[in-house]
Amino acid sequence: METTDKIRVVEQYVEAFANHDMGIIRHMFAGNATVEDPLGTPAHEGLEAVCAFYEGAMKMNVTLALTGTPRCAGNAVAFPFQAKMANTVIDVIDVFEFNDEGKVVSMKAYWGPENMTS
Amino acid sequence: METTDKIRVVEQYVEAFANHDMGIIRHMFAGNATVEDPLGTPAHEGLEAVCAFYEGAMKMNVTLALTGTPRCAGNAVAFPFQAKMANTVIDVIDVFEFNDEGKVVSMKAYWGPENMTS
Repeated sequence: METTDKIRVVEQYVEAFANHDMGIIRHMFAGNATVEDPLGTPAHEGLEAVCAFYEGAMKMNVTLALTGTPRCAGNAVAFPFQAKMANTVIDVIDVFEFNDEGKVVSMKAYWGPENMTS
Repeated sequence: METTDKIRVVEQYVEAFANHDMGIIRHMFAGNATVEDPLGTPAHEGLEAVCAFYEGAMKMNVTLALTGTPRCAGNAVAFPFQAKMANTVIDVIDVFEFNDEGKVVSMKAYWGPENMTS
């Protein structure tokens, strides 16, 4: 998978939140995708569970703003961003792993209480 | 493992590069640690191989500067930084996973050619 394709997925992910576009989410994740947000909490397993998780986030009007350039390596991309909702901002790093079809098969979000400001 | 302990390890890691202090590196990694830098390249497996890798980096006078706050979640911490050497700067995200003894058992570095500037 080309670096430019990985970065495009990250950009579309930000766009999905901005526009409440679940079509992007449904298209970018693999059928067997897992999402841990944050890491250490029970994973959302499978595309339907993943989509349900993101629908919930979009109902909370979460928006994302990159705070650095995406870093591509191996089958993955890691990127730093701020998630903003109501009066709260969370500094997050997400790691996407891609399968051979270019779909995100694993998403892990790294953040904790100490990364939240309001 | 407490969040403050994870962040302290990140700070010591930066300090190790600044002071060419291999004692910090040897103390922070587990005996069975693996390092992939960048992800997708052959892993350095075991403490001696890990230390040999870092000794090489220190001979190149690499220094690290955090570019955002460490994000702790589950058994891990992810943090964005710049690695600087000679005239080159690389934007990197590292992910450390800790074992039950608080030692780093897995380090994965995310960066690629597009993250290098000179």
